[in-house]
Amino acid sequence: MALTFDHVQNAYAAIRESTMRTPCIKAARMSLHLGIDLYFKLENLQHTNSFKARGALNKLLTLDADQRARGVIACSAGNHAQGVAYHAQRLGIPATIVMPHGTPFNKIAKTEDFGGRVVLHGKNFDESVDFTLNMAEKENYVFIHPFDDIAVAAGQGTLGLEMLEQQPELDCIVVPIGGGGMIAGVATAVKGIKPSIEVIGAQADLYNAVQSKSEGKSKVEGGSTLAEGIAVKQPGARNLKIIRALVSEVWSASEEQIEEAVFDLLSSEKLVVEGAAGAGLAVIQKNLSHFKKKKTGLVISGGNIDSRLLSTLIMRGLVRDGRIARLRFEIDDTPGQLSDISRIIGESSANVVEVIHQRLMQTVSLKKAELDIVIEARDRQHVRELVETLKAAGFKVSAMGKS
Amino acid sequence: MALTFDHVQNAYAAIRESTMRTPCIKAARMSLHLGIDLYFKLENLQHTNSFKARGALNKLLTLDADQRARGVIACSAGNHAQGVAYHAQRLGIPATIVMPHGTPFNKIAKTEDFGGRVVLHGKNFDESVDFTLNMAEKENYVFIHPFDDIAVAAGQGTLGLEMLEQQPELDCIVVPIGGGGMIAGVATAVKGIKPSIEVIGAQADLYNAVQSKSEGKSKVEGGSTLAEGIAVKQPGARNLKIIRALVSEVWSASEEQIEEAVFDLLSSEKLVVEGAAGAGLAVIQKNLSHFKKKKTGLVISGGNIDSRLLSTLIMRGLVRDGRIARLRFEIDDTPGQLSDISRIIGESSANVVEVIHQRLMQTVSLKKAELDIVIEARDRQHVRELVETLKAAGFKVSAMGKS
Repeated sequence: MALTFDHVQNAYAAIRESTMRTPCIKAARMSLHLGIDLYFKLENLQHTNSFKARGALNKLLTLDADQRARGVIACSAGNHAQGVAYHAQRLGIPATIVMPHGTPFNKIAKTEDFGGRVVLHGKNFDESVDFTLNMAEKENYVFIHPFDDIAVAAGQGTLGLEMLEQQPELDCIVVPIGGGGMIAGVATAVKGIKPSIEVIGAQADLYNAVQSKSEGKSKVEGGSTLAEGIAVKQPGARNLKIIRALVSEVWSASEEQIEEAVFDLLSSEKLVVEGAAGAGLAVIQKNLSHFKKKKTGLVISGGNIDSRLLSTLIMRGLVRDGRIARLRFEIDDTPGQLSDISRIIGESSANVVEVIHQRLMQTVSLKKAELDIVIEARDRQHVRELVETLKAAGFKVSAMGKS
Repeated sequence: MALTFDHVQNAYAAIRESTMRTPCIKAARMSLHLGIDLYFKLENLQHTNSFKARGALNKLLTLDADQRARGVIACSAGNHAQGVAYHAQRLGIPATIVMPHGTPFNKIAKTEDFGGRVVLHGKNFDESVDFTLNMAEKENYVFIHPFDDIAVAAGQGTLGLEMLEQQPELDCIVVPIGGGGMIAGVATAVKGIKPSIEVIGAQADLYNAVQSKSEGKSKVEGGSTLAEGIAVKQPGARNLKIIRALVSEVWSASEEQIEEAVFDLLSSEKLVVEGAAGAGLAVIQKNLSHFKKKKTGLVISGGNIDSRLLSTLIMRGLVRDGRIARLRFEIDDTPGQLSDISRIIGESSANVVEVIHQRLMQTVSLKKAELDIVIEARDRQHVRELVETLKAAGFKVSAMGKS
């Protein structure tokens, strides 16, 4: 059986009452900046902060009374886990979620908050999946696949129907691809209403499974990615078939590009987004000419990004933009040096953020000292000017990192 | 002349075409958490990421051709500056924005991005205002007050009209108060449509000007606040009159409560918000029983929060929640100690984030060493258990900070 427009429409009727109709807003600042006409579908404001809740709910609603009583099981450490747990609890269906050992605490806690029973098993994801399938059989649970399931893909597709209701003039929609359930559902939905609309897929370079397949490569690189939600090596075969038929382009972005896009969405658009949404924006930024004069919609697939990671990502973004810089001084170990340096920095209107005066692990001679000063400046050019001023005043100084 | 419902309605007709109709969404996770029925009006997604753009636009539209040609001037380092600059540029009106010396670069840059001419003058805000008024007179510019102006307050009030269109069942609306323009406008708007609706004001403790006045205090405390947008010592007299007439309660929140609320909005609701919006949520969290069984709307007034501050705020939030903790060890300076400690931490499923092994500035004897290990744990209880395990293994260790 293949996914059809009817599946998506039926899913829409089934889930809409218990699903957030998330806003589809004009990305005003970014449109101005990029010179394109860009709209965001804010699935980071969906229940459990991810589009995954749509597919999970639609699947749960297809279960009969006997299946509901037996309960469901899923294998996921991320958005799928929370989506299943949240809606299963609402519907009174017992839900077991299997996660690999080493899953971060906050992911376990968020799933348990929604009433899911979390079982930790397996050193990695593949081991967890095997365990999950065994447990499903032994305990007679219904297994809910995160993407290779028509009811799940149809549920995700409902966000496409909403987008065209909210912004009927869209010419093009960009959708992140992991297992392919969302893009299969969305493409089926929007092409069913507006055959002229273009659908473009966005992947992480490390998990460019769709591109690799069409290029005949045997496997994707894999590894650690900020875009955890789309870190899938093997998309569903049915989803791939739909992608081949309905999706015009599939592009991917590097980790650095994804990180910058997540930072841009936070600082310019005030949105907390997961890496997969960053991959979507990065793909647009990389292929900007393609989107000129097209009204383009991007699915902000979710907002679940680790807070500690986010805090670091913001600081790295400021460093990249040249707003935070680290100056390294080699100074004579005599009094007054720090005072002179601070005065010059102050006069240039930069702010001192941190002073690191270390005496061990230094590369300089014992009578010299190494001093690092972290400053906040206007931009990279401001830092360069400050370094020149400090050099002119006789200091041995250099800016660390990119400049 | 006093602000009336007609002013707000006229403003709505005037500005709606060039104003974002921002979403008014159910705060799903936070409603569940707090046990109330909470909705957010997302003015952080407004043009220039603040409600201030509404008032600025409405004021600019009241200017005649001669005034437009002369140009406008405003004094603001924040949202008002960007709002005026953005819409003035769109309308082809020259805009000068005066800011005090020492204004952070990114605030200057954002205003200049929108075509505003920024003039730095004055050691503090009062000096800048004096300079601005002089310059307005000398250069024949139209001065645009940030809140003490009927056209400005009427413009801000339009967001109240939208809220009742989007969520007609609201029983109560919480609005941050600085100069009082937004709450005066919103209260006039929503009471005009639905007299039974309750309007509540939210201030920062340090700038609780409305409360202080009613308590007969001569002045507010002032000082540095995270809620910069509402750091106003003297609200407008006309706005105060409307507040006395239409606003049922005015409550305030401490800096700590505001900071926690901003963190909650980011981590639970995936929203980047300014401190003023945090004050609104903090006031709800502090007076929770008041909001039970009421459908409550909160104005998320804006999203302009300094990125560096935000990064630090996230880390502090994780520390407060016990997810990040710093363990201080006093160890014998012999090999193998770090290895043993790391093993115990790993076995407890906590992660090592940072190791600080300093030898200067220590309080211990020369043959001992002080070692700080920053860990990521499940929660505070997990940290306590780990500390007990480490003590049982013979280590002299304590958790730093709150526990």
